Amino acid sequence: MCRWLAYSGSPVLIEDLLYRSKHSLIVQSLHSQLGAEETNGDGFGVGWYGVQPAPGVFRSVEPAWNDRNLRELSGHISSALVFAHIRASTGSPVQQTNSHPFRHGHWLWMHNGLIRDFNLVKRDLVLAIGPELYPEIEGTTDSEVFFHLALSFGLEQDPPAAVARAVGVIEEAGRRHGVEHPIQMTVATTDGRGIWAFRYSSEGDSRSLFTSTDVPTLRAQHPDEPLLALVPDDARLIVSEPLGDLPGAWSEVPESTCVHVEAGREQSAAFAPAAP
Amino acid sequence: MCRWLAYSGSPVLIEDLLYRSKHSLIVQSLHSQLGAEETNGDGFGVGWYGVQPAPGVFRSVEPAWNDRNLRELSGHISSALVFAHIRASTGSPVQQTNSHPFRHGHWLWMHNGLIRDFNLVKRDLVLAIGPELYPEIEGTTDSEVFFHLALSFGLEQDPPAAVARAVGVIEEAGRRHGVEHPIQMTVATTDGRGIWAFRYSSEGDSRSLFTSTDVPTLRAQHPDEPLLALVPDDARLIVSEPLGDLPGAWSEVPESTCVHVEAGREQSAAFAPAAP
Amino acid sequence: MCRWLAYSGSPVLIEDLLYRSKHSLIVQSLHSQLGAEETNGDGFGVGWYGVQPAPGVFRSVEPAWNDRNLRELSGHISSALVFAHIRASTGSPVQQTNSHPFRHGHWLWMHNGLIRDFNLVKRDLVLAIGPELYPEIEGTTDSEVFFHLALSFGLEQDPPAAVARAVGVIEEAGRRHGVEHPIQMTVATTDGRGIWAFRYSSEGDSRSLFTSTDVPTLRAQHPDEPLLALVPDDARLIVSEPLGDLPGAWSEVPESTCVHVEAGREQSAAFAPAAP
Amino acid sequence: MCRWLAYSGSPVLIEDLLYRSKHSLIVQSLHSQLGAEETNGDGFGVGWYGVQPAPGVFRSVEPAWNDRNLRELSGHISSALVFAHIRASTGSPVQQTNSHPFRHGHWLWMHNGLIRDFNLVKRDLVLAIGPELYPEIEGTTDSEVFFHLALSFGLEQDPPAAVARAVGVIEEAGRRHGVEHPIQMTVATTDGRGIWAFRYSSEGDSRSLFTSTDVPTLRAQHPDEPLLALVPDDARLIVSEPLGDLPGAWSEVPESTCVHVEAGREQSAAFAPAAP
Repeated sequence: MCRWLAYSGSPVLIEDLLYRSKHSLIVQSLHSQLGAEETNGDGFGVGWYGVQPAPGVFRSVEPAWNDRNLRELSGHISSALVFAHIRASTGSPVQQTNSHPFRHGHWLWMHNGLIRDFNLVKRDLVLAIGPELYPEIEGTTDSEVFFHLALSFGLEQDPPAAVARAVGVIEEAGRRHGVEHPIQMTVATTDGRGIWAFRYSSEGDSRSLFTSTDVPTLRAQHPDEPLLALVPDDARLIVSEPLGDLPGAWSEVPESTCVHVEAGREQSAAFAPAAP
Repeated sequence: MCRWLAYSGSPVLIEDLLYRSKHSLIVQSLHSQLGAEETNGDGFGVGWYGVQPAPGVFRSVEPAWNDRNLRELSGHISSALVFAHIRASTGSPVQQTNSHPFRHGHWLWMHNGLIRDFNLVKRDLVLAIGPELYPEIEGTTDSEVFFHLALSFGLEQDPPAAVARAVGVIEEAGRRHGVEHPIQMTVATTDGRGIWAFRYSSEGDSRSLFTSTDVPTLRAQHPDEPLLALVPDDARLIVSEPLGDLPGAWSEVPESTCVHVEAGREQSAAFAPAAP
Repeated sequence: MCRWLAYSGSPVLIEDLLYRSKHSLIVQSLHSQLGAEETNGDGFGVGWYGVQPAPGVFRSVEPAWNDRNLRELSGHISSALVFAHIRASTGSPVQQTNSHPFRHGHWLWMHNGLIRDFNLVKRDLVLAIGPELYPEIEGTTDSEVFFHLALSFGLEQDPPAAVARAVGVIEEAGRRHGVEHPIQMTVATTDGRGIWAFRYSSEGDSRSLFTSTDVPTLRAQHPDEPLLALVPDDARLIVSEPLGDLPGAWSEVPESTCVHVEAGREQSAAFAPAAP
Repeated sequence: MCRWLAYSGSPVLIEDLLYRSKHSLIVQSLHSQLGAEETNGDGFGVGWYGVQPAPGVFRSVEPAWNDRNLRELSGHISSALVFAHIRASTGSPVQQTNSHPFRHGHWLWMHNGLIRDFNLVKRDLVLAIGPELYPEIEGTTDSEVFFHLALSFGLEQDPPAAVARAVGVIEEAGRRHGVEHPIQMTVATTDGRGIWAFRYSSEGDSRSLFTSTDVPTLRAQHPDEPLLALVPDDARLIVSEPLGDLPGAWSEVPESTCVHVEAGREQSAAFAPAAP
């Protein structure tokens, strides 16, 4: 459906994250290898943390591969925490408010996958969103509703627990409406310091998700790889699909897992929905 | 907030409706004289009935005055019933799904004005929409929610009664949340045969609305006016503000009125909200 | 680089041309099978003849597959002569003025391929354009310069001769600047009655081009094919790649050929550049 | 035609330049007071110097007042030298490549005004551009041709002399084609260190241009003005029209003048075209 990338580490130019590698996110916008759709040309978005507590968000309806402003901005903005997302719409309109990442306060959220039969369950899910959060919704995607469910269930206090409750509500609503496998997801969310990434699907056959190997380890394995010279030691990437084919550079995140990256350290834990 | 135009009569080229007159809708997009805002540059839309039972809708996020596709299409499409709308956003994003007219089946709807403090009342209003209609909402405007309220209350069976009930619900919700004057509106809706236009506001000080004078009468008054030679005898226009300054050509619709135009005939009736 | 379709015959809904077939132009915008690029998502355009002598042209920078206005318009406009083009940019910006078809008076022009090393030869080619035609150029593509060269050499009087001279000038300019194979092209042009289509490249290895088989013949071969029931007897299509896989329905246009379709009849002739 | 702003001084957030003042450039996009057109809604652009030697450029076809990405970016990017421009098209298409500022290497250029009867003189002017510079032109504005003329005449070595020669060529070409007053201009150009701004027109009745007063002087005059507390001591602004109404804050640049601002110092000199 979509492809995304989350970076945390010493500040890097966004251009280095989006354009430099052999199988970069920009290349994936034209030719994804592992995605449900090969072309991800229905808009894109980049969120980054900089001089303000709240992140900046640049979202566009154009395909990422031909957007000149993305090229300009990514060549002039450095950041220690970057989210980038390219979209393949599953039906909702291609408009800026439907491009990820979504923002609430200093939090960002992006999603690959879908809430199945969203039209059947949308009203029930919207009713489960906190009334004070509800008017914030600006677009019409399942992903933005999912974000606001997680916010309603305490994302800002305990991200894994809030996402577990949101997924529980989505599965319960789906099953009530006869949807066999209500959710398919990889999700990333951040408060500007930590990143929480989730891989899960009701059917146990989730979209791909990978984390990058610790850079010093990788450098020891590939002392002559020129690309590694450009990468900070504390760099951590979580991606829908690997950005290159360097052996040992990427590890698949297991099914039903939550990965937490903060201050250069990565931890994984099992993830399961919480029944409402 | 916005400006609109509704035409019914023998088929005319849409270009003649949008571009030809001295104070055309395109001129109004840059310099409205009676609108709450002078510039209406936040997107536009045109709906027209043609070869299909359902109308075509062309909506754009660009200012109408510089949109080349609008110029092309309006020069090549003739229609006997046309809705056109230029938008000045009151806050919601400029995106195609927020441009009027909105469509449901073979019905169109457009609105000038606003539901005040929409963020306060949005959730209540959305709950009053029929659950089967709710997933149809694609944008984030008050106007589209208003349309779906009217649809929920039987717009397709009895337009004046359905709009009266929708306005009643909006006023009731607004007052429950402490909004003094919950709604300001001129609205037009059509099933492709008749047009119903409404002028109303909670404060009794509504946005301007005008209907055109019967063409044979006008021709008798101005036998030498060249523009009138181009107009079909059965032409009827309802507009936010007059398209020109020909004396006698335009009549203001009174406050709290519903105008119904069908088959070249125009009827007016008092309009009042129906308490929920 | 791009994909295109030209239709002539009894009026058909543009939607039937663009969306209905198994491997329609819209499908090709995501997944071309024979194109130099698989994705053709850098804008599109449609030109059609209707109520005016000059054709209408609708051009967009969005990918054709997600453009809602294209869907609307093509569902409401019928025409007896339609050009449609989906673009994969070879470097020039994605902007409406770079989308095909291009128009001059009542003529249309569209091109798949490229003038190689266009930056090297652009100035020379522009100097060969008639000074009165030069200010008409609105975009920055090689294709629009090619069109204006052909116009300068009498396209409106003798299309094959004018295109031959234009190609001769392009090849001569290219070779003067050391370009081995200056041009790669399939081109279609029309005055609203006849269509002239060209397949040629300096290297003798041209982009694919196909014409549709005479409909009564095809109907006799496939009496049970439901799609054929929808097609007028006099329908003629010229396309970059077949719209379906019905055996016998498509014939490849040979290298270095000009095809002329008018009033349901098709004629082919050898095509060779004319030395300047 | 357009409005623009050039800033040099200690780094400031672009948002402070574009949105904060009473009569900011964003306000001018809807309601210019001194411009030839009141609405400047035909796209915009921002150029800024940051981490790279070449400036970043963000250009859009949307009206500046409703562009959300402009708001995001300007709230996250600080710069010591900023150019911003809002466009009111005089006919050429609204497309990113027609939005100012234009860039060549580490130079920027923006223009308010027009080359009169540009279609008559365009070919002659384009021929006067250096052949190696010519292929760089991406849009179709008179302003971009003017920039490339100035580059051809040595803008990077001696800006005032190069602009004088470019204007001389434009006036000579115009007069050869019977244009009474060939050019109307305020122009700003920069190499990232100095800014050169020009006010000139063939008829001696040029578009308005203002420079800001030295900040310490202004602070002494208005010790209680809160806005001044936010402004660096070395801030220098050159603008089409004043951003506020603080007495003494703005000085009109005289007719036929070149202003040079560098390192917090401002110098003026008479400007006259150089005959070709």
